Formats: sequence, structure tokens, C-alpha cells
Amino acid sequence: MRFARFGDRGQERPAVLDAGGRLRDLSGVVPDLAGEVLGSLPRLNPEALPLVPGAPRLGPPVGGIGKLVAIGLNYSDHAAELGAEPPDEPVVFLKATTALGGPNDPVVMPRGSVKTDWEVELGIVIGRRAKYVGVAQALGHVAGYTIVNDVSERALQLEGSGQWTKGKSCDTFAPVGPWLVTPDEVGDVQALDLATEVNGERVQTGSTSRMIFGVAGIVSYLSGIMTLEPGDVIATGTPPGVGVGHKPPRFLQAGDEMVLRITGLGEQRVTVQAEG
Amino acid sequence: MRFARFGDRGQERPAVLDAGGRLRDLSGVVPDLAGEVLGSLPRLNPEALPLVPGAPRLGPPVGGIGKLVAIGLNYSDHAAELGAEPPDEPVVFLKATTALGGPNDPVVMPRGSVKTDWEVELGIVIGRRAKYVGVAQALGHVAGYTIVNDVSERALQLEGSGQWTKGKSCDTFAPVGPWLVTPDEVGDVQALDLATEVNGERVQTGSTSRMIFGVAGIVSYLSGIMTLEPGDVIATGTPPGVGVGHKPPRFLQAGDEMVLRITGLGEQRVTVQAEG
Repeated sequence: MRFARFGDRGQERPAVLDAGGRLRDLSGVVPDLAGEVLGSLPRLNPEALPLVPGAPRLGPPVGGIGKLVAIGLNYSDHAAELGAEPPDEPVVFLKATTALGGPNDPVVMPRGSVKTDWEVELGIVIGRRAKYVGVAQALGHVAGYTIVNDVSERALQLEGSGQWTKGKSCDTFAPVGPWLVTPDEVGDVQALDLATEVNGERVQTGSTSRMIFGVAGIVSYLSGIMTLEPGDVIATGTPPGVGVGHKPPRFLQAGDEMVLRITGLGEQRVTVQAEG
Repeated sequence: MRFARFGDRGQERPAVLDAGGRLRDLSGVVPDLAGEVLGSLPRLNPEALPLVPGAPRLGPPVGGIGKLVAIGLNYSDHAAELGAEPPDEPVVFLKATTALGGPNDPVVMPRGSVKTDWEVELGIVIGRRAKYVGVAQALGHVAGYTIVNDVSERALQLEGSGQWTKGKSCDTFAPVGPWLVTPDEVGDVQALDLATEVNGERVQTGSTSRMIFGVAGIVSYLSGIMTLEPGDVIATGTPPGVGVGHKPPRFLQAGDEMVLRITGLGEQRVTVQAEG
């Protein structure tokens, strides 16, 4: 099944998509797509629920995201484009939760930014608490999958003093969605195509088959370090074609439109703005 | 004034300290020390409130902490002990909020850990939303101060692949408290003594006067990157004397007791445990 959240920021309501891709209001069934609800998502006939009128804004398809964990350099072909050695174990960082936004909300470049870049990523949504979970059990803790754009300001990430956090945590730098898609509907999560277009030009092309650490391995590994809670989201790394990997490097400008797609997970369509 | 939160994990209630240092129940005045309440903390006579009976557990003195931001290498004498150059701008990282705990909760070393280390730090508690705030205005966004132990597993932080996050984000690695102390009661925040003892032996001795980036500068700088929200906590870096800086290096063992103190902010007393 495919779930979404619609409405103004901070006021989103839960929805489920029907066979025709229309939003059906789920707020009579669950209060939100958040917390423990993610461990037992409702199985029902969407057509029995009221249609959501109009074309409301979509928020992240998960509410109350407590942690936004991200994995770096996780595609062998992306590591190669950056001239980096594939890591021996997952590279882990956190993005600030204040960076979260809906799948079509504008991305706002911070003041003075000249190196804002795109990163399409498969997002894992945790459904059940995970601590010291083995690889064989890991997927049982996953509620579903979504798209995350791990937007990155490369000067802040790479040129300043230490640590990537600054370049990864600017407000609006984590569009999530449009949908939370359950694993049964996704099928083989390690065989999904990923793509990014900027102003209609394809810039990123990849497949989750090229992940160095797969979904189950990432969930297991992280759960050995920190408790993963329902509603945590893990961005699993990006395939080749980021701006900083272009020759010469290429970055976003105000007015650019990014479109991100992953097989079965829908698309994000985002306009880039300069901070006012 | 000095505020605290008492009760079982996740069920803490707000309190204020009276002149004798006893907890007075504040739950009839505010629902929690969280969110917007932090921007207008109650001014009242604690003696008019009911005494909290017994000696309950203390939680972090702030509820609903959305972000736990930390600054690295921010004491000139600590940078020197590690042989690191003082940074030109703040080194920023995030600790997972699942690492949070009360000031006397046990610190649990993750499985296989052999390099768990202490870091006493002044914690800034944000009271009012801050975005692009100048240095002169920054302190107006601060609700008060507390103690943070930025517990760190050095093998995970420094020896694995990239980024400090893993070694900083293990469960229990962020004891906060005991108190949230308002700025008027703290006085000059850049003239506080910091100390850590392990099993009664003084290991860290420092002063916030040796910060490379002061409190106002840190709040202003971070607010230029990410929105700081009420209830966010910023750990401002540690003075000299961490275990990894000892010659030879020295790390925590199960059964060790850490005591952390900062002038006017009380003390944390924590037992170290091994993961069961």
C-alpha cells in the first residue's frame, strides 16, 4: 500500500492512495502515520474512505520523525566518481530534523551558498524499535520506503572545519516523500532505479543494486550503535551524478527545478530558491 | 532560577528548586519544561509550591529535545592536548536524541566498546526560535544553561569510516542536567569552572573562559545554518583532560563513577555499565 500525509506544514493528516492514485482520507482510521502506527499500518480497502478534495500540499509521509540518519558513500559507482575508496563499514551522519520538508516544498539555499547540490536516496522508514538486530531480522523492523533528497551545501560540508553536518542540515535540505510504500508493494528493494533531473536534464542515474551496504545490513549495523525508533528515517546514500562529481562541478541556482524518482516510490518535484 | 524534571523516563514532571535546593512541583503551573514554555519560564516563589516527596530520579531538565547539536574542539587548551589546530569556525556535529538521559542515569558502553570516554560540557538550552540571529541578539534566544556529558566511544568516532556521529550517538551517551539554570542566576557564562572526576580522581579541569567560540557566537553561527527551536540543546565543547588525551590514553570501565560539575549548574553522578 501507498500512504501519504497532506495539509499545511505541521498540520498534516494521514491518507492512503487508492488504485487510481487518488488520496483517501485516513484520519478516521489512524491519528497520524507516526510512532507505533508505523508498526501496524492499516490494511483496508482505500475505496471505502472519503476522497481528499483538491490538490493539497503533501508533507513528509511520516510524522514525528525523531532521527534522520544518513549513510555516505554507499554506492560503488558514486564512490568511484568522487575518487573515494569504498568504505569498509557504513559512513554514518545525522541530518537535523529541522531540515525536513514535503516532497514538493521549495529547497532554500542558505545565504551566501554557491555549492548547493542534489542527492536522490532511498529512504528507509522504521516501523518497529530496533536495537542489536541481526541482518536476518532487520527487514522486520521496516515500515516501508520513500524518497529522500539529501540536499548538501558542499562548501559548508567539505571546505570548512571538520564534519559534514553543517552542509547537510540547512533548513529545507531534506525533502521526504511523496509516499510511504510498504515493502510488499516495493518488491526487491535492492533492484530499484533512481534518477534525478535538473531543469529536465538527467543528472543522476543509479540502481539500488549498486549499494555497498544493503538495506538489511544498514538497519542491523545502525541498531548496534543507536536504538532505531518507529518514525526514524534512514537515507541510504546516493548514486553517481551529484553536482560536485561533474567535471567541472555544477551546482543549483535559484529557479532550478529538481525532479527525483525511484521505481515504485513516485517522484519529488522541487523548486530551488535563494534565501530572502 | 533553577528548574528540573523528575520521574520515570518519558514521564518526567516539571519542578523548580527552592532556596534550600529542594524540588517543588511545578506541574500545576506548566505542563512541562519544553517548547514555548522555555521562552517564558515562570517567575514565582518556589516556596508556594508543593514539595516533591522522596528522592525521585531526575530526567533531562528539558523535555522534547528536538536537536542535540555539539561543537568540537572548542577549547584552546583541549585542542592543544589533542595536537589539533584551533578551528577557524565552529566544528559542528549532531548527537542522536535517542542518546539522551538524565544526569544520574547509567552510561552503558555498547557491545565491544573499549574506548568510551568522558567530556564535560556547558549546555545551552534554546528558549526562543533563532534563525539568522546576530551575535548581539543571540543570548536573547537562550532559556538557560545545563551540564551535558558528551560521552564518546573513540574507536567508533575516530577509527572507523568517516564522521564522528557513530561514536557520539550510542544510547545513554548524552546525560543532561541536573538543572536548567536561568542566565540571570548563572552570571558570566564565560567564566564558569568545569570539572570531571572518575572514581574520585580529577581528570578534567577547565574554564569556559577558554572557549574559542563563546556562547553568543555559537548560537549566532548555528542560526545561520539551521533554525534553532525552543528545546534544542547545544553542547559547547569540552576542556582538557579527556581520556583519549591522557598519556597513555585511558578509558572507562564498567563500574566506574563519573562526576561532572560546572559552577552554579550542579553535578552529574553517573555509573558506567557494560551492555548486557
